[in-house]
Amino acid sequence: MSELTVVAEGGVTSSRGFVAGAARAGIRPDGRAPTGPRLGASLAGQAAHEGSDKPDVAILYSEAPCVATAVYTSNRLKAAPLLVTQKHLADGKARGVIANSGCANAATGEQGLRDAWEMARLAGTKLDLEPNDVVVISTGVIGTFLPVDKIASAVQAISLSAEGGGDFARAIMTTDTRPKHVAVRFDRFTVGGAAKGAGMIHPDLATMLAFLTTDAAVAPTFLAATLREAVDGSFNLIDVDSDTSTNDMVVVLANGLAGGDPIDEEHPLAGAFRSALTYVCQHLAREIVSDAEGATRLIETRVEGAASPADARRAARAVVQSLGVKTAVYGADPNWGRVLAAVGNSGCEMSADLITLWLSGPEGPDVCLYERGRPLAFDEAQARAVLHGREVRFRIDLGLGEGSATAWGSDLTEEYVRLNSLYTT
Amino acid sequence: MSELTVVAEGGVTSSRGFVAGAARAGIRPDGRAPTGPRLGASLAGQAAHEGSDKPDVAILYSEAPCVATAVYTSNRLKAAPLLVTQKHLADGKARGVIANSGCANAATGEQGLRDAWEMARLAGTKLDLEPNDVVVISTGVIGTFLPVDKIASAVQAISLSAEGGGDFARAIMTTDTRPKHVAVRFDRFTVGGAAKGAGMIHPDLATMLAFLTTDAAVAPTFLAATLREAVDGSFNLIDVDSDTSTNDMVVVLANGLAGGDPIDEEHPLAGAFRSALTYVCQHLAREIVSDAEGATRLIETRVEGAASPADARRAARAVVQSLGVKTAVYGADPNWGRVLAAVGNSGCEMSADLITLWLSGPEGPDVCLYERGRPLAFDEAQARAVLHGREVRFRIDLGLGEGSATAWGSDLTEEYVRLNSLYTT
Repeated sequence: MSELTVVAEGGVTSSRGFVAGAARAGIRPDGRAPTGPRLGASLAGQAAHEGSDKPDVAILYSEAPCVATAVYTSNRLKAAPLLVTQKHLADGKARGVIANSGCANAATGEQGLRDAWEMARLAGTKLDLEPNDVVVISTGVIGTFLPVDKIASAVQAISLSAEGGGDFARAIMTTDTRPKHVAVRFDRFTVGGAAKGAGMIHPDLATMLAFLTTDAAVAPTFLAATLREAVDGSFNLIDVDSDTSTNDMVVVLANGLAGGDPIDEEHPLAGAFRSALTYVCQHLAREIVSDAEGATRLIETRVEGAASPADARRAARAVVQSLGVKTAVYGADPNWGRVLAAVGNSGCEMSADLITLWLSGPEGPDVCLYERGRPLAFDEAQARAVLHGREVRFRIDLGLGEGSATAWGSDLTEEYVRLNSLYTT
Repeated sequence: MSELTVVAEGGVTSSRGFVAGAARAGIRPDGRAPTGPRLGASLAGQAAHEGSDKPDVAILYSEAPCVATAVYTSNRLKAAPLLVTQKHLADGKARGVIANSGCANAATGEQGLRDAWEMARLAGTKLDLEPNDVVVISTGVIGTFLPVDKIASAVQAISLSAEGGGDFARAIMTTDTRPKHVAVRFDRFTVGGAAKGAGMIHPDLATMLAFLTTDAAVAPTFLAATLREAVDGSFNLIDVDSDTSTNDMVVVLANGLAGGDPIDEEHPLAGAFRSALTYVCQHLAREIVSDAEGATRLIETRVEGAASPADARRAARAVVQSLGVKTAVYGADPNWGRVLAAVGNSGCEMSADLITLWLSGPEGPDVCLYERGRPLAFDEAQARAVLHGREVRFRIDLGLGEGSATAWGSDLTEEYVRLNSLYTT
């Protein structure tokens, strides 16, 4: 299998033939239809995230037609842009993306659908594409209408370039504090990606958007299967607040400009492509968790010895999702009982007598807290030191079978509560 | 159907023939095996909840043998006292209860089982009962061993009386700020109850204990069915933090001392008994939510027009469980999109075009925020005023069928995070 190399400062435009750009429409300040001024007197935190010069409309364009596919939110209240994109990707093809932050265009009824379609039309006009070849994505507050005129002006102002990947990533940020993008190379191919996260992050997608590009030619069914697999091993294993948004989407565009036969299951580079896509997705997923609203720590949970892979996923997700675990980690409190209680809640097959639990940092030490049914005396100062690190790892051996999985979550802090109690008004 | 009357200051000893008492063993300060001093410099909040004179061991006793049944946590990591109680209630009978706070005796292996059994033996000796007739319950930190000697001394110090219901309720408190007890009368019968809550509260039970007593004679199968029904309509519809503890249990003892034939499905007072048990459970469930860790508001969510009753429960629970909703309510922010997104996440059948959403306080006004697919312009000042109340109600009409349900949750505050990041160490 070819080796992966990470592209310095890589992103969606690292793949050959992709250009991007962004501009500021100023969607947020006046974008909310029925409400007035914000509730809180101070929104210093928020203001820091959304400086007045941050772009909020972005376009991504491929110089050649792309095979394209996407994975969508499991939330049944699907936002208008998502419904429009589902239609536009029904033929498995796309060539442009238009995205905005500040307004999710969700729960907006018929007008929302018209507005989302209008965004596709605006991008289509600029890029000389059929609206049907444009993916539309919005993120931000639910229940407000898009200021379409402002978006139209911003679209005109956007200039596209191969250096535009960073601007694209910045434009889709909401409460994110930093842009998230990455690219890797294998053989002569590149896979690039950008994502946004911050809140409403939960397995089965969230207020989470990811855009992936590649200059490899990829067979449509292989692309869809590989994307599903990469998402299952990355974005579907992260948790910030157990909420899943109305707008989540991971979309991949493959333009084939690096040449060669389309990669499919039988292709010698099939494994390398799968690894590259998974690498990009996992990198972006961890970035989302690290930059979660108010988060101070990344919690990685590895479950081994589960009766099945599904059980391992269930248990690992339950731990990173537990508010008891999230708050204990925030407090650097080795309250390991909450980890076991979370496993017990997950519904996975388990027997308390067979479980072993370790705590560690990325560079060790490995502190065993509970061994096959017995709480161990452990060095509390050492455990606390581990818990004060930026990255905290729990490893759980269920002692039953061969199933294993890793999930990632953020801790829960007062700052999360502050940010989320002040988000709209 | 007989009318219910609420007993002033009622509790578990309001039912004829029940006596209770409590004493302080001092379980908390030294009860935790592997850890040293607490992490936080200040634990003012915690100290306020657990004054040094608070009793932490309690006994409840019936002067006559009881028909007894219980509902247990869905967590697969079941605590030792719960396993012992399950055995003791296998014959459908009990006459005494011993409970402690400060240590959950969970994840404690073989020694935990021996300690739980020893608690039953201690209570049995005091009450002249077989250990098998004693229900054992512990609540507190997971993974610490019980200080059995201290508990033995406390048991000796306990004196039982018909006025002991309040002490019993105080003894089981952990981070609760106030005891929770209630009793109602119908015909010549009484149903009384006490509960503890505060954290790890979630549908399908939580760090939630409830003890119910009645002097009615009740047929065992009817008692079990009625308890399940009352719990489904109360404790299983509340949420504080989506965690379910290892120790949750709702137990009911019926001693028959008020005389008469055992109440069963055919009995003329079957409906009245069901209402009384449900009233007591709902009262205690709402009390648990109102006194949740760090909570400032009770969120009541009523779902109507669901395709099925199960769908209505799913949707109502999802709303009171959503961190987005909990933080928005805390911030008095009419960010209704999060309520719809939570419904969308619940997995219930829904169509955005058919949903209508109202916000109200217990005494009105009724503010319609979203009507059959359209966001409405609403009076924001009025909505904020409602959200500043102690009790906030969302009513959602899914516009599909006849299913309805009500669920209760707390808001999520910085104080919740503070309390939970400092709980053990």
